[in-house]
Amino acid sequence: MIIENVTNQQEVLVKMVLDTWYAKTAQLDKLLSDLSDEQLMEEVAPGRNRGFYLLGHLTTLADSIFPLLGYEKQAAHLWEPYVKMPDKKNDDLPTVSDLRKDWTIVITVLREKLAGISVQEWFEKHTAVTKEDFLREPHRNKLNVILSRLGHLDYHLGQMQFLKPRGENGE
Amino acid sequence: MIIENVTNQQEVLVKMVLDTWYAKTAQLDKLLSDLSDEQLMEEVAPGRNRGFYLLGHLTTLADSIFPLLGYEKQAAHLWEPYVKMPDKKNDDLPTVSDLRKDWTIVITVLREKLAGISVQEWFEKHTAVTKEDFLREPHRNKLNVILSRLGHLDYHLGQMQFLKPRGENGE
Repeated sequence: MIIENVTNQQEVLVKMVLDTWYAKTAQLDKLLSDLSDEQLMEEVAPGRNRGFYLLGHLTTLADSIFPLLGYEKQAAHLWEPYVKMPDKKNDDLPTVSDLRKDWTIVITVLREKLAGISVQEWFEKHTAVTKEDFLREPHRNKLNVILSRLGHLDYHLGQMQFLKPRGENGE
Repeated sequence: MIIENVTNQQEVLVKMVLDTWYAKTAQLDKLLSDLSDEQLMEEVAPGRNRGFYLLGHLTTLADSIFPLLGYEKQAAHLWEPYVKMPDKKNDDLPTVSDLRKDWTIVITVLREKLAGISVQEWFEKHTAVTKEDFLREPHRNKLNVILSRLGHLDYHLGQMQFLKPRGENGE
């Protein structure tokens, strides 16, 4: 009875984190469908990153979840231009239309993979931590990868919101 | 052995969420110490909310965690001006200096309260959900309150970052 109850709570917690991840990625999907390619080419605030740069950045950070869970990246080519290079220092960027596709592929495949991970597995170590470190730092598990990416997604979602005209819930 | 292991994982998960909350509130503390009152009076982007409005908004949303966990608010007077009223529609706002103090009080008292909640309690229902609804929706527990406020904090942290001059990690 106790085990059932506790296991139940584990399931609930995994569901809480995953559902939040799906809700936030859906929020970005919605924002992307509201924005034209031209709007995505604009800076989110004067002198700051452009919208599509943040889209590339969020796509490659979501893509970086795959290897941490033991899977292959879907869009490995985005790491260099959207993490290693700052915005506006690179003339050789994919088109906004390609980026939209990459985002959708990464999020869709990721969702399939996440759905196949058992509750127990979520509490196992991710691939970038050693067994020894994991004994000392058991929070470095697979679920924590999603939790930390969630924060990162929210942070930039707040900024990308500024691409919408003022008055359209653009605060 | 199984119970111990599972209970351990519960503890780990609570710790993950609370540590993330402490880290993010510390990130806002750091940003606030880097910004002058004058900088906080500025809009985060042209035509958008002013920095101190977002500070009041984040303070009152953190304050709103107390009643959901069964405690009293520390700064109930902030709900009306920073949630019910939009920015720039209210001439009767507290000073930035008062707001900084409110933020610190709310976060400090909250930390004390959070530290006193047992792992088991985190999985119990928060006060705004009925027993009947909680049976159907067990994710509406106390820990989920922190998880959802975390997302909200990150969202606005990304925006408040723009108050820092460009080039100072202000992207």
